Amino acid sequence: MASTLDSVINLAKRRGFVFQAGEIYGGSRSAWDYGPLGVELKENIKSLWWQTFVRGREDMVGLDSSIIQPRPVWEASGHVETFVDPLVESLHTHKRYRADHLIEAYVAKHGHEPANGLADIRDPETGQEGKWTEPQQFSGLVKTYLGAVDNEEGLHYLRPETAQGIFINFNNVVTAARRKPPFGIGQIGKSFRNEITPGNFIFRTREFEQMEIEYFVHPDEAGKYFDEWVEACWDWFIDLGVNPDNLRRFDVPADERAHYSDGTIDLEYRFGFQGSEWGELMGVANRTDYDLSRHTEASGAKLQYFDQASGDRYTPYVIEPSFGLTRSMMAFLVDAYSEDEAPNAKGGVDKRTVLRLDPRLSPVKAAVLPLSRNEKLSPKARELAATLRREWNVDFDDAGAIGRRYRRQDEIGTPFCITYDFDSLDDDAVTIRRRDDMSQERVAIAEVPAYIREGILG
Amino acid sequence: MASTLDSVINLAKRRGFVFQAGEIYGGSRSAWDYGPLGVELKENIKSLWWQTFVRGREDMVGLDSSIIQPRPVWEASGHVETFVDPLVESLHTHKRYRADHLIEAYVAKHGHEPANGLADIRDPETGQEGKWTEPQQFSGLVKTYLGAVDNEEGLHYLRPETAQGIFINFNNVVTAARRKPPFGIGQIGKSFRNEITPGNFIFRTREFEQMEIEYFVHPDEAGKYFDEWVEACWDWFIDLGVNPDNLRRFDVPADERAHYSDGTIDLEYRFGFQGSEWGELMGVANRTDYDLSRHTEASGAKLQYFDQASGDRYTPYVIEPSFGLTRSMMAFLVDAYSEDEAPNAKGGVDKRTVLRLDPRLSPVKAAVLPLSRNEKLSPKARELAATLRREWNVDFDDAGAIGRRYRRQDEIGTPFCITYDFDSLDDDAVTIRRRDDMSQERVAIAEVPAYIREGILG
Repeated sequence: MASTLDSVINLAKRRGFVFQAGEIYGGSRSAWDYGPLGVELKENIKSLWWQTFVRGREDMVGLDSSIIQPRPVWEASGHVETFVDPLVESLHTHKRYRADHLIEAYVAKHGHEPANGLADIRDPETGQEGKWTEPQQFSGLVKTYLGAVDNEEGLHYLRPETAQGIFINFNNVVTAARRKPPFGIGQIGKSFRNEITPGNFIFRTREFEQMEIEYFVHPDEAGKYFDEWVEACWDWFIDLGVNPDNLRRFDVPADERAHYSDGTIDLEYRFGFQGSEWGELMGVANRTDYDLSRHTEASGAKLQYFDQASGDRYTPYVIEPSFGLTRSMMAFLVDAYSEDEAPNAKGGVDKRTVLRLDPRLSPVKAAVLPLSRNEKLSPKARELAATLRREWNVDFDDAGAIGRRYRRQDEIGTPFCITYDFDSLDDDAVTIRRRDDMSQERVAIAEVPAYIREGILG
Repeated sequence: MASTLDSVINLAKRRGFVFQAGEIYGGSRSAWDYGPLGVELKENIKSLWWQTFVRGREDMVGLDSSIIQPRPVWEASGHVETFVDPLVESLHTHKRYRADHLIEAYVAKHGHEPANGLADIRDPETGQEGKWTEPQQFSGLVKTYLGAVDNEEGLHYLRPETAQGIFINFNNVVTAARRKPPFGIGQIGKSFRNEITPGNFIFRTREFEQMEIEYFVHPDEAGKYFDEWVEACWDWFIDLGVNPDNLRRFDVPADERAHYSDGTIDLEYRFGFQGSEWGELMGVANRTDYDLSRHTEASGAKLQYFDQASGDRYTPYVIEPSFGLTRSMMAFLVDAYSEDEAPNAKGGVDKRTVLRLDPRLSPVKAAVLPLSRNEKLSPKARELAATLRREWNVDFDDAGAIGRRYRRQDEIGTPFCITYDFDSLDDDAVTIRRRDDMSQERVAIAEVPAYIREGILG
């Protein structure tokens, strides 16, 4: 039997949420392309996040820094030095692997550590007795070359996190936006990591999108705001409909934390991966004054705050809630996926697939369906769809039996199906069917926008 | 006297629209960072564009393809071969220059071509008599390396245009979204070009954002849709307040067009650059069946449309409206910038700077200003600001004289300043001042959201 995750991946590809990048050329493991429904769902997640955490809060502002920053940024941040993985090369195939991943896989299979280390581990591709080079440090930074010469002088890195673009603009924002701690800067954008083993659909990719907040506080208050942010992030997912049974906190042990973190709590979602069910959805880290201090030291710019009231000058601590955008999307999809039964035209029941997405997330808010493809109904229904499109993403569908059209909308999570029938020509009303309970209601056409607006906001 | 462009650049930096990327490390010429106001303005442009050209149209869908695609995409698209510039190297400094740019600069200065070609052109940095290498073709593609090995096998390119991500997904979208020509796919995203001479503020950068549409039509109808799209793009800028005197069409001659184009009309905006006032804002190109045919040939996938009604199989022609997002932002800023006079407290007048942005574009929709910083007024005013923040980006400002606070909002284009005064405590009303004519009106607090909503939509 297919797992929920498999069903979601299948649906996502078939209905145009997610396509394999470069599919016609055999595909790429580095990234995915988001189709017509995927881009709408992704945009909805982004704008709900931005509204909740940036526009909606007096203590937050936004930023959009560039992917390519000068090289010293990544030296000061510690990424050049510490953002590395130990890789070994198989002497059979000359392919490289993360040594720690090979050992993890061995432990998972045999229930104990390999007695002789890597020497006990067979080549994963050929099955031959393992012959491995010594581990070498391999950078997770994605390199690029800019300028008119093609050498080390032009070497740049694509950012592995959006956070550094926030830190190096700390003084700019404090001055231009006249801010003082506690305050935060939010940012949404792409980051790049040279993952050795991308995988699990859109969960781990080399090109990905983050939604990050760097929240600057007085060092004495770091603990308090850390706890507040963990709660706020948890609440955001729950408010958007995620089942709390599928969400858990993980207090990351010191030796597994990123180099800058003095404490991290991850929110993990039950994605249902093979092997380990749970995966990291987002994390809240206490980055202390690490980043601002490192950049102060390296650049000479004083990234500090001077409190005129108290005469106190200090380097703020930073609480960082960092969300994976596409991981969030995957969690919303998995959580919303369900199968139940719906009555069919023959008096029996059919299986139906429903994405029970919060209507604010739904990529299509309403579908307008003329009862049949007909020269009287279709133009009128089209007119209604055009009206609704001023405000929402709206489908128009006049192909096939009405039941089948409902099924098509159910499986992409459309909360409202609006049927324009022959009575509509006389009574200027339509039948609105709700996705979740399939209830139907007759609504005057003039009232439809208000009905949908209320239905989306709940 | 400072030009309008200089004033806009100064304002943009001072108020936090745009910061130099990596400023604390001496800055980068490759890219810019968008501050709290810049990111809001940019988001407003993106969502208005998306609403007008994607969500709002029955014949359009969206897509978000990845920046990194398999290498064969760029071979098939012709970019590896033709996206190149001839560069010469100065033997004095070993710096490289575009040969055509050196000759252009010579012509601009001397009024005639150099008699002996490059030999007549002095080193731009040292002024020495020029000694140049032969021109060599230099790729404008930005390279990157992915995977566990650091060699040609891992070579990838960052996309120089979002368009190819659309072409290679043609079949995916036609199938998943059940579309037939004429229909279009819209996309907003970052692209990268290794510009030899980035410059003119955010006009030419190595990292930039595009808003692109690929509109697929029957070959016989390409001319008709080309004309329609030129008009639709022109109208979009005018509808958002751009002065038509600052906008013009440029029919690009065949030898200046991109390799894929059978006809291009650029919309140029009067940015006011030194030398040449006008700059390309966006372009509409007839890409014919070039891209789909090339990918069909290279990948073996049939990127064609089969019309079941007529039994006709054909490769659609593509009309491409391609917008620069940050160029659009720069045009909106330059066009909105104005200086006039406002009465001051002493009965005289002060100069005021006003960004006369269309309210839909304004980064801050309203500012809530308690008449003075006061323990009665401030909490009530804050409450109103919090209410309005549910819908819009809203400032709260209680620092300094009210006139100065008006000036601060005028110069960032905030359409409404809402003053909460001592009368407000009794009459539950506030004074709303409009940015453009400085008129004031008393409005009940309960009516403020509706007042602003109407004021924004016009």
